[in-house]
Amino acid sequence: MSPSMKLYSHAVAPNPRRVRIFAAEKGIELVLEDVDILAGQNRTPEFLAKNSSGGVPVLELDDGSCLSESVAICRYLEGLYPELNLLGRDLREQAEIERWNRRMELELFAAIGRTVQHTSSIFQGRFKQFPEYGETQRALVYQRLERMGRELVGHEFVASDRFTIADITALVAIDIGGRLADIKIPPELTHLIHWHETVSTRPSAAA
Amino acid sequence: MSPSMKLYSHAVAPNPRRVRIFAAEKGIELVLEDVDILAGQNRTPEFLAKNSSGGVPVLELDDGSCLSESVAICRYLEGLYPELNLLGRDLREQAEIERWNRRMELELFAAIGRTVQHTSSIFQGRFKQFPEYGETQRALVYQRLERMGRELVGHEFVASDRFTIADITALVAIDIGGRLADIKIPPELTHLIHWHETVSTRPSAAA
Repeated sequence: MSPSMKLYSHAVAPNPRRVRIFAAEKGIELVLEDVDILAGQNRTPEFLAKNSSGGVPVLELDDGSCLSESVAICRYLEGLYPELNLLGRDLREQAEIERWNRRMELELFAAIGRTVQHTSSIFQGRFKQFPEYGETQRALVYQRLERMGRELVGHEFVASDRFTIADITALVAIDIGGRLADIKIPPELTHLIHWHETVSTRPSAAA
Repeated sequence: MSPSMKLYSHAVAPNPRRVRIFAAEKGIELVLEDVDILAGQNRTPEFLAKNSSGGVPVLELDDGSCLSESVAICRYLEGLYPELNLLGRDLREQAEIERWNRRMELELFAAIGRTVQHTSSIFQGRFKQFPEYGETQRALVYQRLERMGRELVGHEFVASDRFTIADITALVAIDIGGRLADIKIPPELTHLIHWHETVSTRPSAAA
């Protein structure tokens, strides 16, 4: 890989962290360029030309073209750098890991996102918040953490017997929920607590 | 493929339709078994053993194991039946199609889903609806349809110069929004209207 491969990123936002952890697990060094999304730097014509949705992360390839959406970027990196394998070795495993990654994303990460959006002061004045709705989403998050805790009984990791993209998605989701919406893993969910400690102590978690 | 490959499905729900269209484009015949989700048939212990989230669709494989999450099922079918290609031929195209499929899913489909959940009588009494929040999501849907219309200028399809999974996701999203939340493509979005007519007249759309 050319050292010029650049990731438009943000220090706190969870989706750029997903890609940074994914790349770190593979030993890929990306040139990070921080985009100040709270100041609207992702809404400039220059940035919208890279990604018309205005989201980060965006990966700028050697040919100058840009790829967005965190999981699409991860799949591209996996194709270039197959090891450490994070998306599955054969078709059945790939499908199973995608299943669990989507469960973590659509059920857990999305519910945490809605909780943050509707209850955190960071979004006040940015759009209309519905705090009461946000609290229903917080309750949903705790239901889903409880289920996740049950599903981890007898399993070290979310999707497989090894660390995969599904663990990354769940980690960034839970961590941003803790940071911006005071979501904490209940101490009685011992399997989930253990999983969180395990994945948090991997060096990639600092990426 | 064994003719015993079964898809747990639902006639109206959009995610099973995604997989049915995907399979129809490939000429794969699935044995459909309807799950009455409105009557809670997906919450029985038998069904939860197939998919602990209770969602449909679920693909039951020849070995009796089950795969859930529509896009994971699609990826598995693509691996077994590479043609008609719907997920991309090379790595760069695969990443780009995944990018657009996620855009259609996370921005359009999800916003339509929240509009339906919070404004449609079909969900009344099933959980607490926030109609005012639902209307903000409806407004978001129309913003995203408008952007989608702009992005289709000069493009016949959403992600590529040919029909892909991203078109399927957008089609099922828009159609369920029309059916349950009175979402209509504004007539001035001529490129989007044309796209919708094109994809709706493919035989697979009836699947």
